[in-house]
Amino acid sequence: MKSAEERLKDLLSKNGLSVATAESCTGGLLSHRITSVSGSSTYYLGSVVSYANSVKTGVLGVDAKVLEIEGPVCSKVAGMMAEGVRKVIGTTYSVSTTGLAEGSDEFGNPEGTVWIGVSGPHGTSTHRFYSDSGERKKNIERFADAALDALVSYIEKDSTCISE
Amino acid sequence: MKSAEERLKDLLSKNGLSVATAESCTGGLLSHRITSVSGSSTYYLGSVVSYANSVKTGVLGVDAKVLEIEGPVCSKVAGMMAEGVRKVIGTTYSVSTTGLAEGSDEFGNPEGTVWIGVSGPHGTSTHRFYSDSGERKKNIERFADAALDALVSYIEKDSTCISE
Repeated sequence: MKSAEERLKDLLSKNGLSVATAESCTGGLLSHRITSVSGSSTYYLGSVVSYANSVKTGVLGVDAKVLEIEGPVCSKVAGMMAEGVRKVIGTTYSVSTTGLAEGSDEFGNPEGTVWIGVSGPHGTSTHRFYSDSGERKKNIERFADAALDALVSYIEKDSTCISE
Repeated sequence: MKSAEERLKDLLSKNGLSVATAESCTGGLLSHRITSVSGSSTYYLGSVVSYANSVKTGVLGVDAKVLEIEGPVCSKVAGMMAEGVRKVIGTTYSVSTTGLAEGSDEFGNPEGTVWIGVSGPHGTSTHRFYSDSGERKKNIERFADAALDALVSYIEKDSTCISE
């Protein structure tokens, strides 16, 4: 069976479509996975790794008030990160991650929580994923897997809509 | 012996300093390596992965004329990427990579060539590294190793200057 990265290539390269990523907790792993595939430069334009909140607001346009009230690990921030990077980099699709690979936060999110956002021409969807590995590196890997799966799933449904 | 990522943590965290990355050919691996270290969020603010030239010019402020005349894999672009991301993200230091993990380019650079830029309060330095592995993934790993080593080496010298 093909990996999510390879399925992404099949979906995007033959249709002249593109994708960008906005990563917080996955810290570049999502981008690394996508660019590990030969030929990815034809559909992968780039990423903003917004580890600090200042990068989420300053580069991606995330609302500072939402960060203050709901914290960085929530549905709204995941959605705004995905929409922001799609606009900044200028792609058909985008995917974002914002979560806790290690430790809990002051907003009641336990370690292992991640919110994933996927954005495209037909709208933005977000969902929550939870990993109970208890290990930073393992959580980061599972978050990246979940985000790639969410992205591929969104594009597969979107491509169906386009071809109908 | 400590890894370059761990040495980076020792150098930055105790001095309240920060770093950002601008990655082309390493595609997020540099960022992933840095953020694999627990506690990295205190000194690592983020990254711009500028896989496409449009991201190099639009987000990082690389001169389009230089890209046209010298191509993306050259000393000037590595320097401008490092300076650009340091400004966009607002950090003490930054490191950039622009190279060819697979295939040669029309500007005479062979596969395995990478230009690395490191920027900080005392200026910007660039250098060329060459990997002859012949494998995309291996070249990406070697590029990330070389970039992390260049960054740590720059900061070690810079820290010496600061403490004198």
